[in-house]
Amino acid sequence: MEYKKVAIIVAGGSGTRMQSAVPKQFLELSGKPVLYHTIAAFAAAFPDMEIVLVLPEAHFTFANHILQAFDKLPDITIIKGGNTRFHSVQNGLQQVKHPAVVFVHDGVRPLVSTTLIRACYEAAIIHGSAIPVIDMKDSIREISGGNNAAVDRDRFRIIQTPQTFLSELILPAFELPYDPLFTDEATVVERLGHPVHLLPGEESNIKITKPLDLVIAEVLLRERG
Amino acid sequence: MEYKKVAIIVAGGSGTRMQSAVPKQFLELSGKPVLYHTIAAFAAAFPDMEIVLVLPEAHFTFANHILQAFDKLPDITIIKGGNTRFHSVQNGLQQVKHPAVVFVHDGVRPLVSTTLIRACYEAAIIHGSAIPVIDMKDSIREISGGNNAAVDRDRFRIIQTPQTFLSELILPAFELPYDPLFTDEATVVERLGHPVHLLPGEESNIKITKPLDLVIAEVLLRERG
Repeated sequence: MEYKKVAIIVAGGSGTRMQSAVPKQFLELSGKPVLYHTIAAFAAAFPDMEIVLVLPEAHFTFANHILQAFDKLPDITIIKGGNTRFHSVQNGLQQVKHPAVVFVHDGVRPLVSTTLIRACYEAAIIHGSAIPVIDMKDSIREISGGNNAAVDRDRFRIIQTPQTFLSELILPAFELPYDPLFTDEATVVERLGHPVHLLPGEESNIKITKPLDLVIAEVLLRERG
Repeated sequence: MEYKKVAIIVAGGSGTRMQSAVPKQFLELSGKPVLYHTIAAFAAAFPDMEIVLVLPEAHFTFANHILQAFDKLPDITIIKGGNTRFHSVQNGLQQVKHPAVVFVHDGVRPLVSTTLIRACYEAAIIHGSAIPVIDMKDSIREISGGNNAAVDRDRFRIIQTPQTFLSELILPAFELPYDPLFTDEATVVERLGHPVHLLPGEESNIKITKPLDLVIAEVLLRERG
């Protein structure tokens, strides 16, 4: 079956943690806004990629400005975000027509590779879903009440995006009523009884949430050549 | 009661992850070896701090070289490490006389602040132990068998060092026979039935395990001024 490819890039952050008037997805990384890199990665992964950019209406002008930096404009629609990530993704999903592979990605993960995007696509077709994860390197403890206990970090994985799904799974899932426990898309899809499939993510696929992350991203981008 | 202060700095890493012939604790950070910064932090926290540096015999010459960089030599003893972290700490503990507050610290955490070291001291005197922890910022999933499930990251804390204990707790604990589950000192002390006390660690108290971490540490050190 031929699947459309739709990347819903969620960029709703208010930027307060960056101590910057400019929301973090618009800060510069190697001379281009963070969000430019994110969009470019998805546009490069598949020639027929449709991009749905979900962000606050107040940022539409800035987003349009970013698009002018592309030599070849990607197939992109700009959509207004909702109050929560769930509602933003719900808005973005209105652009999706069956049958499609839907990528939901954090706008502030600009270093996602085309390799990972393609691996998510292949895995989603086989398994229905594809959630990139990496190993946990820190030692952790579990808190419960006033007590705490050592836990084996090997039992856990750190979740990244793009969280990727067949449209036949993600579209019905997002018709569920909102639940504050829906912190990511995998949780929503699971609620309908579909286990999600994990695949190896990338250490460099970092989320830019504070100024230091931009410095790290610069170094990672330089290493990539 | 007057407590001696003993910092056991464990620097046993072989450096293979750094793609460098020089073990990571000897790599330069702002013109001084990583381990210099670590030792300096503990020496600065208390004027009567005794430092026990535990490392492979092959690194003794290099370590002595680092000590020459101090204008005022700290009170320091260099001890040969063991096959595991447990055995290295066990060797270091032979230098500890009751009653003392014992800090066990990763040699590759050079950015630990004197504020945190002093906070650990105060908390260990009150609670018997003090383990610095920070919140987890990544979303995580738990793996079990072929399945995986969302978990609430707020249930968990990331563990740092210095793991700090009254000598009356840590000395008997390290007479226990070795168990591969002893991945940190808190686990050993808990085995004797003592719950450990957690206190807020520091985001900047990072562990240097790969080349990118050195870049991050440079930035953090620069920010500190």
